[in-house]
Amino acid sequence: MVYITRREHFSSAHRLFRPEYSDEENMRVFGKCSNPLWHGHNYVLLITVKGEPKPETGFVMDLKKLSQLIEEKVLVKLDHKNINLEVDFMNGKLVSTENLAIGIWEELEPGVCASGAILHSVKIEETENNSVEYFGNK
Amino acid sequence: MVYITRREHFSSAHRLFRPEYSDEENMRVFGKCSNPLWHGHNYVLLITVKGEPKPETGFVMDLKKLSQLIEEKVLVKLDHKNINLEVDFMNGKLVSTENLAIGIWEELEPGVCASGAILHSVKIEETENNSVEYFGNK
Amino acid sequence: MVYITRREHFSSAHRLFRPEYSDEENMRVFGKCSNPLWHGHNYVLLITVKGEPKPETGFVMDLKKLSQLIEEKVLVKLDHKNINLEVDFMNGKLVSTENLAIGIWEELEPGVCASGAILHSVKIEETENNSVEYFGNK
Amino acid sequence: MVYITRREHFSSAHRLFRPEYSDEENMRVFGKCSNPLWHGHNYVLLITVKGEPKPETGFVMDLKKLSQLIEEKVLVKLDHKNINLEVDFMNGKLVSTENLAIGIWEELEPGVCASGAILHSVKIEETENNSVEYFGNK
Amino acid sequence: MVYITRREHFSSAHRLFRPEYSDEENMRVFGKCSNPLWHGHNYVLLITVKGEPKPETGFVMDLKKLSQLIEEKVLVKLDHKNINLEVDFMNGKLVSTENLAIGIWEELEPGVCASGAILHSVKIEETENNSVEYFGNK
Amino acid sequence: MVYITRREHFSSAHRLFRPEYSDEENMRVFGKCSNPLWHGHNYVLLITVKGEPKPETGFVMDLKKLSQLIEEKVLVKLDHKNINLEVDFMNGKLVSTENLAIGIWEELEPGVCASGAILHSVKIEETENNSVEYFGNK
Repeated sequence: MVYITRREHFSSAHRLFRPEYSDEENMRVFGKCSNPLWHGHNYVLLITVKGEPKPETGFVMDLKKLSQLIEEKVLVKLDHKNINLEVDFMNGKLVSTENLAIGIWEELEPGVCASGAILHSVKIEETENNSVEYFGNK
Repeated sequence: MVYITRREHFSSAHRLFRPEYSDEENMRVFGKCSNPLWHGHNYVLLITVKGEPKPETGFVMDLKKLSQLIEEKVLVKLDHKNINLEVDFMNGKLVSTENLAIGIWEELEPGVCASGAILHSVKIEETENNSVEYFGNK
Repeated sequence: MVYITRREHFSSAHRLFRPEYSDEENMRVFGKCSNPLWHGHNYVLLITVKGEPKPETGFVMDLKKLSQLIEEKVLVKLDHKNINLEVDFMNGKLVSTENLAIGIWEELEPGVCASGAILHSVKIEETENNSVEYFGNK
Repeated sequence: MVYITRREHFSSAHRLFRPEYSDEENMRVFGKCSNPLWHGHNYVLLITVKGEPKPETGFVMDLKKLSQLIEEKVLVKLDHKNINLEVDFMNGKLVSTENLAIGIWEELEPGVCASGAILHSVKIEETENNSVEYFGNK
Repeated sequence: MVYITRREHFSSAHRLFRPEYSDEENMRVFGKCSNPLWHGHNYVLLITVKGEPKPETGFVMDLKKLSQLIEEKVLVKLDHKNINLEVDFMNGKLVSTENLAIGIWEELEPGVCASGAILHSVKIEETENNSVEYFGNK
Repeated sequence: MVYITRREHFSSAHRLFRPEYSDEENMRVFGKCSNPLWHGHNYVLLITVKGEPKPETGFVMDLKKLSQLIEEKVLVKLDHKNINLEVDFMNGKLVSTENLAIGIWEELEPGVCASGAILHSVKIEETENNSVEYFGNK
């Protein structure tokens, strides 16, 4: 078993809030991350896939194909978008980085599986100091 | 003459667009950076100040005071805000990183000058790959 | 289960040595890290906590609260201090990065537990090239 | 159990190809990484070793000794070399980063074991965006 | 005058040597960088362009267009190539990073000028520790 | 004229203080950087040298020789030392990063000059966020 990781980026706007709360309640719970006119981040995305290297290529999975899969399933939806308003797989969810990692896992898992590899983790670095990692439902 | 640099961060939403253009024209000129529902970045801000080290402290300017000045004049206005809608010194301007650097220079220059040092440059890294630096009106 | 990581910093002086050794013996065992007049580092501290995201916030644990906990329990004791002489939880211990990671774990574990999350790991990067990670007593 | 990691570098030339394929077939499978006149990388190597800190030093393993072991067993063979043509432990293998990680594991494992610690993982960052990690045959 | 910088990458093989020297003489002068079977690097390329921001875009030069220019004039020739054997603008030159920076300047200067901006500098980071910067013939 | 930069590191203890002040006065002026039992940093040192590339090597100055010069003149004195107590060229000076940069300039300038190149700047990054650069007495 070898683990390979592809690093990608997206720059998006978002807001942490619950629609049933007032702006004041949201500010109390979520602080400045709840600014009603949005804020944004350069998110760093690290996708780790595992498997046996294939004898004919030496690859667990061609990293160019993994990069294309991430582009098609995740980045086209997230990059230069408003995560709360424009991203189908986050519809109706609280846009915490935790929930975003779970959402990205679900978008990627079938495609990684179809390639013959196993999705191991989805890591998101929201800032230099804050990151989240999800290893699937286990 | 010694140069000192303080690095700070802010996370904001913005959009590149001209109000007199249609969304299509804005997309043609500014691409995905013109997304009408905003996107955002983790901006890295590097402020460089120059002067003679003072004999009693060995400092050109106390970096903690430079950091406070940046916080009070710039970061409270920009961090976790929408640069197009909420930042007074960018009011009515195209929110390019170039114009943002010039705006930040104007916010900081009087305070740096009052401390007895000279503002040398304002550098903004919008992403790992794109940055802008302004050395004042010369 | 989702894992969240907060990155913090502290800058401290320390020395590797055993009091029962002579300076020569300490130099032979610990090399330049045993310099009797101290040396120091910018330590990077990465604290990882795991748990289920809470439905009302989407958070495993509020990263601002995790940051405050690290500040109160660890950074106020370590930052801009001499680890051998001024840090209660390292009293009488060899100040290796391994032992420092174990000490920090013990300082943080009760507070993370009280917040309803689980401390997963304490990682310390002493330099760009040397790091240590501790996952608790298991 | 504590985990320690040493970060090292090597700069090498290589090529992804299968000798039984034509240049065209190699280009189709491996893309530009198959350029017949070679290309190269600054590889970052992260070696993680685990064990109990020894009471007399506080170390799992002296990081200077780990660094020397990596230098002697791995870097002298790889650094400023052509991995396909000059590295004995990659002889006859496809030079994928996956296979390189497995090869480095086999070079290092006996020496780490002899020091009383356990080799935990070999991680190679081929570029900022592509990395591979191997945890041994399990 | 505002300065904008675009960061790009290329991964190439090269060798430092003079054809009129023997391998031994080359090794004496250039050390391991003269390995006859090549070595390679991940080069980081930083291109800085200066000018007045244009009123209609707020841009000194559209960074996407600068990126395309670098891609077309420089990266297609260098990336995943052997700099000594395959790069027309380095033909017959010693492949030092200094000479490479001068060569890249000459490739880029006409295109930057045609866009209405001024090429300010070409910086190449060959490794984390070694870099070169060229500001043109002045 | 081409500029080359070598990046080095040193890890040292220091303290900001004036001996004629009480501990309280030092704390008021220098804050936690004045801790009487020291603190320390991983300093990053960037030395930039300029000149014409020599036709026979393509080098402004052999970066290995620049690295050796920095090692012999600066790093052996600073690395794993107490800058206030053990570094001859800082004797009797306030150990601000500004003064340290000037001190390092004076240590390096004759050796760079003897090699036929020109010392351009000494930059010290004390932390990720604080840095100082000195361009000589002009």
